[in-house]
Amino acid sequence: MVPPDDHAEGAHDGEPEGATPVEVPTEVTGGVLRIDAHTIREIADLGVAQAVAVNAAEPLTVEELREAWPVLDVDERSDGLKLLEQEDAEDLFTTLSARDHVQLLLSWRPGKRRSWMRLLEPDDIADVVQEAPDEARGELMALLDERTRKEVQALLAYAEDDAGGLMNTRYARLRPGMTADEAISYLRRQAREALETIYYAYVLDPDQKLLGVVSFRDLLTAPPRTTVAEFMETDVIRANDEMDQETLSRLFAEQDLPVIPVVDQHGVMKGIVTVDDIVDVVEEEATEDIQKMGGMQALEQPYLESSLGTMIKSRGVWLTVLMVGEMLTATAMGFFQDEIGKAVVLTVFIPLIISSGGNSGSQASTLVIRAMALGEVRGRDWWRVVRREILTGLALGGILGVIGLIRIVLWQAAAGSYGDHYLLIGLVVGFSLIGVVMFGTLAGSMLPFLLRKLGADPASASAPFVATLVDVTGLVIYFTVAHLLLSGSML
Amino acid sequence: MVPPDDHAEGAHDGEPEGATPVEVPTEVTGGVLRIDAHTIREIADLGVAQAVAVNAAEPLTVEELREAWPVLDVDERSDGLKLLEQEDAEDLFTTLSARDHVQLLLSWRPGKRRSWMRLLEPDDIADVVQEAPDEARGELMALLDERTRKEVQALLAYAEDDAGGLMNTRYARLRPGMTADEAISYLRRQAREALETIYYAYVLDPDQKLLGVVSFRDLLTAPPRTTVAEFMETDVIRANDEMDQETLSRLFAEQDLPVIPVVDQHGVMKGIVTVDDIVDVVEEEATEDIQKMGGMQALEQPYLESSLGTMIKSRGVWLTVLMVGEMLTATAMGFFQDEIGKAVVLTVFIPLIISSGGNSGSQASTLVIRAMALGEVRGRDWWRVVRREILTGLALGGILGVIGLIRIVLWQAAAGSYGDHYLLIGLVVGFSLIGVVMFGTLAGSMLPFLLRKLGADPASASAPFVATLVDVTGLVIYFTVAHLLLSGSML
Repeated sequence: MVPPDDHAEGAHDGEPEGATPVEVPTEVTGGVLRIDAHTIREIADLGVAQAVAVNAAEPLTVEELREAWPVLDVDERSDGLKLLEQEDAEDLFTTLSARDHVQLLLSWRPGKRRSWMRLLEPDDIADVVQEAPDEARGELMALLDERTRKEVQALLAYAEDDAGGLMNTRYARLRPGMTADEAISYLRRQAREALETIYYAYVLDPDQKLLGVVSFRDLLTAPPRTTVAEFMETDVIRANDEMDQETLSRLFAEQDLPVIPVVDQHGVMKGIVTVDDIVDVVEEEATEDIQKMGGMQALEQPYLESSLGTMIKSRGVWLTVLMVGEMLTATAMGFFQDEIGKAVVLTVFIPLIISSGGNSGSQASTLVIRAMALGEVRGRDWWRVVRREILTGLALGGILGVIGLIRIVLWQAAAGSYGDHYLLIGLVVGFSLIGVVMFGTLAGSMLPFLLRKLGADPASASAPFVATLVDVTGLVIYFTVAHLLLSGSML
Repeated sequence: MVPPDDHAEGAHDGEPEGATPVEVPTEVTGGVLRIDAHTIREIADLGVAQAVAVNAAEPLTVEELREAWPVLDVDERSDGLKLLEQEDAEDLFTTLSARDHVQLLLSWRPGKRRSWMRLLEPDDIADVVQEAPDEARGELMALLDERTRKEVQALLAYAEDDAGGLMNTRYARLRPGMTADEAISYLRRQAREALETIYYAYVLDPDQKLLGVVSFRDLLTAPPRTTVAEFMETDVIRANDEMDQETLSRLFAEQDLPVIPVVDQHGVMKGIVTVDDIVDVVEEEATEDIQKMGGMQALEQPYLESSLGTMIKSRGVWLTVLMVGEMLTATAMGFFQDEIGKAVVLTVFIPLIISSGGNSGSQASTLVIRAMALGEVRGRDWWRVVRREILTGLALGGILGVIGLIRIVLWQAAAGSYGDHYLLIGLVVGFSLIGVVMFGTLAGSMLPFLLRKLGADPASASAPFVATLVDVTGLVIYFTVAHLLLSGSML
């Protein structure tokens, strides 16, 4: 298969990693297995639509192990790796999440740990160390060769979700004075090194300041004698090392770049981020937002792998907060006891009214939150959004209001459910729906702006949160409208 | 800047595109502008946090135009491009969405259309044609040179969101018999062509069947005389041309590959997909899911760019459906008129009860839907999920139930709100909460599986949809519990 990125071969050919192929096999083969290929294949087959009947003798494939992975415990995963061909095992290992890396590494003997850690890039190792329990960190760092340890330490200075935390420090450098020919043969020699890529080379001045970039392709097409400085691209899209990963992924999406260089505030080159790392970031960010929008704290781990405890905590906290908020509805309705007592029929429509408000609210907040995440809507656009949402809310409220009125008239005609004042009741419900939907839409669309202004994550304006907010107001609107229209008749 | 992908230079150097630089300027410069750099900069600055005070004389930058883009109409965008330096304008144009491409192209004269369309890759052109109104398609196709038209027609045979619809047909090919040296000099010559990339070359047999892949890096490090066949990677991760883009993006995320080749069912090489196209796909898919989960149809266009009409339609339809469903609550409560009449105080807690059910339901469905989208949970895992959710629901229900009971006892002690039977009422609320939350959790987590089984998109198990479902059941649970516990005392 194509190496995960160019590095994968680098890891085999490069000097420090040279030892790996020798060391690992002795570690990997042999020992009592707690799970066999057949069992793994069975688990895997469950999910694989295109599962093919495989002869039990055949060795396990990467795909099968990957398929079964989520439901295997750490020892079974370790055995699974042993069941693969060495190279496949290494390829699979390098593509695992930092959390999986930590679990496996800590379950292995130091010797085996070292040899497998050497397969990882400095940036991956940094993630592993950040993911590892504090007590294990020193131990893991101790396994690294001098050069790698230095690089990892540099990376650990950055927050995990900064550009600096995502970048790879092993990139190809060129001097502006080199000729195209010199640059090519220089990069050819570099090709064996564990560089992330040699296809984009960065031109640095003596102070490591970024002057420009050349693609290998530029070099191949440039006249051999011209110096790099003459044809390098000087207006380079770059990321600051403290740029957060969400902004960085927006940059990649906008620019369609394969690689973006990372510089500090002095323009000193720090490393490169490649687009394949960004795919994971984009999915991560979307998952976080989606879970928050579902009215819970974002989970650190995949659903099936999160412990019941974390699950209950991350959901329970929010449910409780929401319920406490929702208690205001009980208080609100307390105020309207007399109205309710006199016109019990009104209570019948309470769920209808408040849920309509909640639904229109969650639609609006969902739209705005996502648009913000994608950079389509910026803080200053709030007024544009208000204008849109007032009109939308009015239209939607009108539609629902009419439907509500019709519903009541029909039921009255069919079963006379609502007594002589059914028309008044219908109007109360209709007007309340207009008001509630309008309020829901506005609240839902403005809350993300408010949260952002307060420095909170707009995604916390979750559907449930908005719904709760709107429920209380919805009741007040409903009973106020009722009071206005029905006093004298029913009230 | 680094070219969007290698193609961008290709587009300038390659033969058919050669004409562009000559043609465009005459088209771009001159003419009366409907908007000037200053205005665009003003609009842009609104949003740019790091906005710098720029001297009005300075030419507009790509970033400023990009910033202002969403709020400019098509003519202003066209003017914006004229205000940029030629090369910047072309770079920006190539990174635009298919929708933007169509709007701009159709607003231009045929001559200008041709020269700008030549900047686009066949796969981008195919998207443009698919996005264009039927009547304009033939016209656009007519602007293409013979070779490109053939390629585009081939791509148009695929659905937009299949691997075939995403792939680029201009990839580097090698024959297995070539030596490393021959391959390198062959690719060097190819470097000027408008290939998507020369860094990964695909080895094909005479029938165009995919035999293997070599990275340029492999070639540089291989002994010059060895044939490609000897060191090519034969076990190539490949995508079927009919694989849907969601599966394809999962493949990229799992494998961390920069490029994946696309083959038909006979193993014949059709094209390549590069990871930078996948970033957009991942965001698109996430946005669609998020909007569906927010209880609405997914929007085709960015929030600020969608017309009020589409907005109202895509939201109104769902709101109406949900409301019609919610009407069942009114019906349900109709059945309990007597209970309500006898114990009006019960109505006070209705919003509290049903919203708690709705919230726990949307949490559960959100979790499961996202886990499915990420491939963490597969159809066959439903039983695992049930087991988890029953326990979670029980725990969460217990917590909320106790809080509810305490709330009532406290209010009673403080204000005697609930009369002599307050303890019974508290128990009714408490037990109802347990039941409602349990039901909400289960319904929310199983609905996505059901929808998937029925061939529908699990994401349609939106929070509002689950909430509506749970509201009705919640009421029934609540009043049934009340009936059991209160009959003889209050009822």
